[in-house]
Amino acid sequence: MNYKDLEKQDKGSVFDTNDAIANLTFNDVGLIPAIAQQHDTGEVLMMAWMNKLSIEETLRTGQVCYWSRSRQSYWRKGESSGHVQLLREMRADCDGDTLLLLVDQQGPACHTNRKNCFYISIDKAQATIIAEPETE
Amino acid sequence: MNYKDLEKQDKGSVFDTNDAIANLTFNDVGLIPAIAQQHDTGEVLMMAWMNKLSIEETLRTGQVCYWSRSRQSYWRKGESSGHVQLLREMRADCDGDTLLLLVDQQGPACHTNRKNCFYISIDKAQATIIAEPETE
Repeated sequence: MNYKDLEKQDKGSVFDTNDAIANLTFNDVGLIPAIAQQHDTGEVLMMAWMNKLSIEETLRTGQVCYWSRSRQSYWRKGESSGHVQLLREMRADCDGDTLLLLVDQQGPACHTNRKNCFYISIDKAQATIIAEPETE
Repeated sequence: MNYKDLEKQDKGSVFDTNDAIANLTFNDVGLIPAIAQQHDTGEVLMMAWMNKLSIEETLRTGQVCYWSRSRQSYWRKGESSGHVQLLREMRADCDGDTLLLLVDQQGPACHTNRKNCFYISIDKAQATIIAEPETE
């Protein structure tokens, strides 16, 4: 199986999970971008990176585990803050080079304590901070 | 200005757009990931890559322009298909290494004619095709 071959498959067609993961396109350091979206509101929370093992762990445990490029280690989101992401569904895109994680975010997703990481709005004229950190 | 310094800024604080763009973190080939989300429904449509000039063009024209890694050229989304993305808002994340584009997608976003690119659901047991191409 490869992602190109899936394009013509009917809705409802099923494939092996191990094949689906093995055929993802990882970059030259073995990572794939993963977008986290709150499953019920549609809010895009953050984007981070996963490797093959963090994808497998996330599916197995139901709790999102990324790969931290800055720390070069597994990043079990919320391990210290408690702001975990419970996985509701993992999706791959048409060419298998991006993941979308539908999650139930506990607490703020952003390390700044804002609900999501995308709080800087940029337009032609100026850039603007559009969100405050949450207060407990 | 750098993104780290923005963390403590109050909501409503404004900055220069050129600074905001210049201080984004581009990867070693000058690209930054950009997530496209339908502005009114919250549907995550696709993820692609932009460089500095495609960001500037997108802000200037109001129509999303990516950088195509496979073709190594500017990719004015919908130029041949008509399935353009009208920009409603561009946002950067906390560390300035990912963009979120709130867009008004015209027609299907995916080259397979599906509404969005994330049509392969992966769980522990199996992977499943969850969307059909749109019919005109």
